[in-house]
Amino acid sequence: MKVLIVGGAGMVGRKLAERLARDNALGGSPVSALTLYDVVPATAPDGAAFPVRISTGDLPAEGEADKLLADKPDVIFHLAAIVSGEAELDFDKGYRINLDGTRQLFDAVRRAGHGPRVVFTSSIAVFGSPFPEAIGDEFFTTPLTSYGTQKAIGELLLSDYTRKGIFDGVAIRLPTICVRPGKPNKAASGFFSNIIREPLVGMEAVLPVSEDVRHWHASPRSAVGFLVRAATISGDEIGRRRTLTMPGISVTVGEQIAALRKVAGEKAVKLIRRTPDQMIMDVVSGWPRNFDASRASGLGFTADASFEDIIKVHIDDELGGKIGV
Amino acid sequence: MKVLIVGGAGMVGRKLAERLARDNALGGSPVSALTLYDVVPATAPDGAAFPVRISTGDLPAEGEADKLLADKPDVIFHLAAIVSGEAELDFDKGYRINLDGTRQLFDAVRRAGHGPRVVFTSSIAVFGSPFPEAIGDEFFTTPLTSYGTQKAIGELLLSDYTRKGIFDGVAIRLPTICVRPGKPNKAASGFFSNIIREPLVGMEAVLPVSEDVRHWHASPRSAVGFLVRAATISGDEIGRRRTLTMPGISVTVGEQIAALRKVAGEKAVKLIRRTPDQMIMDVVSGWPRNFDASRASGLGFTADASFEDIIKVHIDDELGGKIGV
Repeated sequence: MKVLIVGGAGMVGRKLAERLARDNALGGSPVSALTLYDVVPATAPDGAAFPVRISTGDLPAEGEADKLLADKPDVIFHLAAIVSGEAELDFDKGYRINLDGTRQLFDAVRRAGHGPRVVFTSSIAVFGSPFPEAIGDEFFTTPLTSYGTQKAIGELLLSDYTRKGIFDGVAIRLPTICVRPGKPNKAASGFFSNIIREPLVGMEAVLPVSEDVRHWHASPRSAVGFLVRAATISGDEIGRRRTLTMPGISVTVGEQIAALRKVAGEKAVKLIRRTPDQMIMDVVSGWPRNFDASRASGLGFTADASFEDIIKVHIDDELGGKIGV
Repeated sequence: MKVLIVGGAGMVGRKLAERLARDNALGGSPVSALTLYDVVPATAPDGAAFPVRISTGDLPAEGEADKLLADKPDVIFHLAAIVSGEAELDFDKGYRINLDGTRQLFDAVRRAGHGPRVVFTSSIAVFGSPFPEAIGDEFFTTPLTSYGTQKAIGELLLSDYTRKGIFDGVAIRLPTICVRPGKPNKAASGFFSNIIREPLVGMEAVLPVSEDVRHWHASPRSAVGFLVRAATISGDEIGRRRTLTMPGISVTVGEQIAALRKVAGEKAVKLIRRTPDQMIMDVVSGWPRNFDASRASGLGFTADASFEDIIKVHIDDELGGKIGV
């Protein structure tokens, strides 16, 4: 099975590649080759028993996506995107990468003509307030950012290309990934991770919103699990509606902090500095808080069991099992 | 007030131009100039007190949309589209006109920089079965045609461009227009009009589905009324969610025929020849049957009062008030 990860240098792409290297398989089928494509060079995962090709380029550029299809990958993960904050600041760049890039990739798959599985990471940013306290599987997409708009368009394209038999697509709406490792990116949601990640290594973190802000989370490990499931589930089992809101954990910031206290103690919690930021509060107030993701749950997509588990995943996967506070 | 109609040679565009000529105004403001743009030359409406410019071209072609923005129209109606049947048969053409063309127009408005009102005609084809018996204003878009996909994408783009202040957009989802005058086009929904229009002039019409098929209709006159209302309603009154499902009349084919009987007698009804067509029945089975369009109704968009009224509008507007059977 040949696998292509578009956006292979990003955090989720890297973790997915590591998982493939560890399993040496995807859904029971041995992986025969892996291509990691991104705008910057990705890192090949350790211990892969299959060849890993690192490729860089500008996805929306003419002919670029066709190169990625030359070896007719069986499974294509399309994770590449300009993140929300940046797509909001740079309108042209966001549309160029998130819409044109996606369309170029889908059209290249069409030209390749072999009908692979395509997994596209969408986002809960396709929803914008007002919405119900828990957003159901049939609620309409009302994005309040260009990023969310571009993701919603990607979902529509994926469904249509799937319906036409061009490829066999699955779009998954990821919860906010928490705890996001490494340095903050330009996403406005950064603080949800910062207030856990930084204190766990003895560093201060800024909390710009109040403790009653509720949000929807999944660990990077769960996100990779969603991708693997999306790559291997049968199309018939999903049916015609190819976009699935992934399950997650709905917690308030206060509950996040309580979980941190349980896992890492009061010392860690004391490193959270409250610095209210009205601009971030306004942005966050338009974000979803909770979902009824029963469709995906029924199809075997499984989230973390609790926010404490989300913290423990971070400690296991990023800190070698040790808290540094 | 300068008005641009993109798709001015189509049936709805023509009727809108006639209405503007008759009113010499749009929402109380005098019309100072009208441009009718299409791929084929539109016909200037009779009796216009303002200059009418007829312009033709290929909307998605580079630089084409910018020409339309040169005189900075105050109101832009974007009605141009490849219809459902044709967009389904010619994938590239549908995406090129319905998606690329829309985007080129929206980007040209952005470059013009004057922030006009943009009215975009979307369609109930953004919905695909299964759906509730009456589709509400918050139901998700699940198109089962490329045309419906392209319209749903247009709605998303319009909302985002509006949110960014590029223009002040309103998208309206038109019911199936009935009775559609003139010759059948490539739309699969043609029979809904054929079984009324043809008998009214003593011609036979083919009914390819059973009488219990229920669908959602508005007269051309109501459609023009929706466009005028959409052009003149204040953006604040609509709020952030700029797509509105228009009100209509939900009737079965049997109820359509009963209305025809009332208006034109048994002689007309006898001209309907029942020739079941499984392909059309399959297509139609995935179409919406009824809507709860209370949001648009609350905002002053008004549909026909009954299907009999829809027939009477056709007799008034197309047959000079006389039934020919």
